[in-house]
Amino acid sequence: MPDIGIIGAGIAGLQLGLLLRRHDVPVTIYTDKTAAQLAGGRLLNSVAHHAPTLTRERALGIDFWPVEEYGYSCHHHYLGGPEPMSWRGDFDEWSSAIDYRLYLPKLIETFEERGGRLEVRTLQAEDIEPISGRHDLLVVAAGRGAFAALFPRRPELSPYDRPQRVLSVGLYHGIAYPEPKGVTISVSPGHGELLEIPMYSGHGFTTALLFENVPGGDLEVLGRQRYDDDPKSYERLVLDKLAKHHPQTFARVDPASFALTGPLDLLQGALTPTVRQDYAKLPDGKFALAIGDVHTVVDPVVGQGANSASHSAWVTGQAILADYGFDELFCQDVAARRADVVLGAANWTNLMIGPPPEHLLRLFGAMYENKAVADEFTNNFDYPDRQWRILATTERTNEFLARRAS
Amino acid sequence: MPDIGIIGAGIAGLQLGLLLRRHDVPVTIYTDKTAAQLAGGRLLNSVAHHAPTLTRERALGIDFWPVEEYGYSCHHHYLGGPEPMSWRGDFDEWSSAIDYRLYLPKLIETFEERGGRLEVRTLQAEDIEPISGRHDLLVVAAGRGAFAALFPRRPELSPYDRPQRVLSVGLYHGIAYPEPKGVTISVSPGHGELLEIPMYSGHGFTTALLFENVPGGDLEVLGRQRYDDDPKSYERLVLDKLAKHHPQTFARVDPASFALTGPLDLLQGALTPTVRQDYAKLPDGKFALAIGDVHTVVDPVVGQGANSASHSAWVTGQAILADYGFDELFCQDVAARRADVVLGAANWTNLMIGPPPEHLLRLFGAMYENKAVADEFTNNFDYPDRQWRILATTERTNEFLARRAS
Repeated sequence: MPDIGIIGAGIAGLQLGLLLRRHDVPVTIYTDKTAAQLAGGRLLNSVAHHAPTLTRERALGIDFWPVEEYGYSCHHHYLGGPEPMSWRGDFDEWSSAIDYRLYLPKLIETFEERGGRLEVRTLQAEDIEPISGRHDLLVVAAGRGAFAALFPRRPELSPYDRPQRVLSVGLYHGIAYPEPKGVTISVSPGHGELLEIPMYSGHGFTTALLFENVPGGDLEVLGRQRYDDDPKSYERLVLDKLAKHHPQTFARVDPASFALTGPLDLLQGALTPTVRQDYAKLPDGKFALAIGDVHTVVDPVVGQGANSASHSAWVTGQAILADYGFDELFCQDVAARRADVVLGAANWTNLMIGPPPEHLLRLFGAMYENKAVADEFTNNFDYPDRQWRILATTERTNEFLARRAS
Repeated sequence: MPDIGIIGAGIAGLQLGLLLRRHDVPVTIYTDKTAAQLAGGRLLNSVAHHAPTLTRERALGIDFWPVEEYGYSCHHHYLGGPEPMSWRGDFDEWSSAIDYRLYLPKLIETFEERGGRLEVRTLQAEDIEPISGRHDLLVVAAGRGAFAALFPRRPELSPYDRPQRVLSVGLYHGIAYPEPKGVTISVSPGHGELLEIPMYSGHGFTTALLFENVPGGDLEVLGRQRYDDDPKSYERLVLDKLAKHHPQTFARVDPASFALTGPLDLLQGALTPTVRQDYAKLPDGKFALAIGDVHTVVDPVVGQGANSASHSAWVTGQAILADYGFDELFCQDVAARRADVVLGAANWTNLMIGPPPEHLLRLFGAMYENKAVADEFTNNFDYPDRQWRILATTERTNEFLARRAS
């Protein structure tokens, strides 16, 4: 029985650890935060889990928030501009969004209950060799830290050298859910996107507003102005910007009760989308495999990061269970098996945050006119490889639209 | 609906064409021989179809020789040397061997019946551009000819620069099938292997003897001596060599009736195992995808070539049906999806025809001692990716054997 070391206790590390524990594989997860620190800390993200991720959670026995109760069924699209358009796309299978300050601690607790070993410590570069010595394989599932530096950036898959959006994501009271309950994807051309997500948190059912703001645009200030300096001023700013740029969401706001759910429930920042090498050879000759953010960090604009990480963890876990060695062949095999979904998610996301190509706008127009196309685009949030096959080139989108029209 | 051109009417080209026709995709297959020429010509090979290939044939409605009637259930192993060992490995699902002079013409006929277009002509390099102009995608499924030159050899996956075996394969009367009916894999250390295959041909149930002779060894003459110069002398030579090197098969020979089934039923030659690039960009900007022998040509010693080609055709066909363009992304996607099986088959085969490493001999020993290991090795003829994961390194074989021993 191999012994696996996992660096990082995010969704990738924990789902991999839980999969391996289901087959009695010895696993140690190294993380720099306790479950209690995560639970009591700042908002971590505004992640939605799509159907394939939820299916994996059921297989792992970690479906603690049943999708029928906590989930949602659709995407409401609003495309602003001189002639605003709105339309809806329905999922065949629901998605859901649970605050990771609930989700990750529960998974950590479950991992330990099921015999997984958790070591809470901050790792340094000099820890790589001794930790590798303890395990047959290291899986690096932490986007930051000493181990992340093992995996060089792949420039051919990393078109940006700086963030394309300035982010502000917060949990709010005072926004009525749309009907049917779903995520609203609102675009203010030239200024950015809003993802309005029905999220279950420690405050119950709340709304996450993830503002994806174009640098230099009218909304960038949402990612720059400090909330703590003047909370009321920040909330007024959000309302003003919602009214101007994202009116479909603003229409459901009750200004009297609108407020951030708590001072730790706002996260501001920016990230540079980056694809890194799949694996690295360590000084002792063993291999380290990258999964999750350390392998591909994507902008959150289409909610692919966590789902891609979960997919990568699943593929990696199945390969560990089926294989007889953790050498370069193993790493190449995992890389090949996950490439379609993981690189599809990265490529699709990178397209969405660049200058919108004409064929993307044409697809939006087709979604507005043809509900079946809108549903397919929505369902492909579950299958980013399929979405990318449609959107990779003008010719592909043309062919897709021609087939759906016929 | 895309229009697909296929160069080559072997198993890869025909199974791909038949898959596409099942979905009404327009397909033209270019080949340099008519069905009648194939049917009346020299023995083409001694191919066995393993269970995944037979499953695909049922899905395509081309299971013309039901495995229950024409197939076999096991491998009989004979390992010669000072202390000969023999053992049997059983398949979970049967394999079968049908003379390709029956098989390919029947598939060509079916392809045309189902609306496929067949063009019989010998293509030259100057045909590439006009033929590419007629189709959305060219799939090259012919190991030889002008189109094969499009795909450069991949040296890192092609360890040999010359043939490792001198081959002689013929169909014979006068050999009783072993009980249970199966392929016999007989090894004469230092001199080569014999694959004795129960094959159905135009002569009914016959036996194919595929001699895999080490250059410079005592058996090389089987691939060199000309049958036509003196048929009786060649048959006597085969009997003499069988008696000396492959006694388990010789014991089932009836010398009085032993004979080649006909003057065209012998094929001699040699091939250099080669892995080539997955795809090529054509002068007009379109892409050509390599499948079958033009992508990976393997020595026939473990019967993987046709099955690998069939797998590649299936993966390619599914990708054509699901995709919206035949660009580099499409080609890379096919390459990634088939890599485990197709490169696994090539790597495993290349190991079998090199100097036998100690861990391969250790695996043979374990098969002799443990029927479950022999059965697993046998079933992995269906899954060359799994076989390669066991055999790629000494450490992997050790780990595999340790797990099976516990």
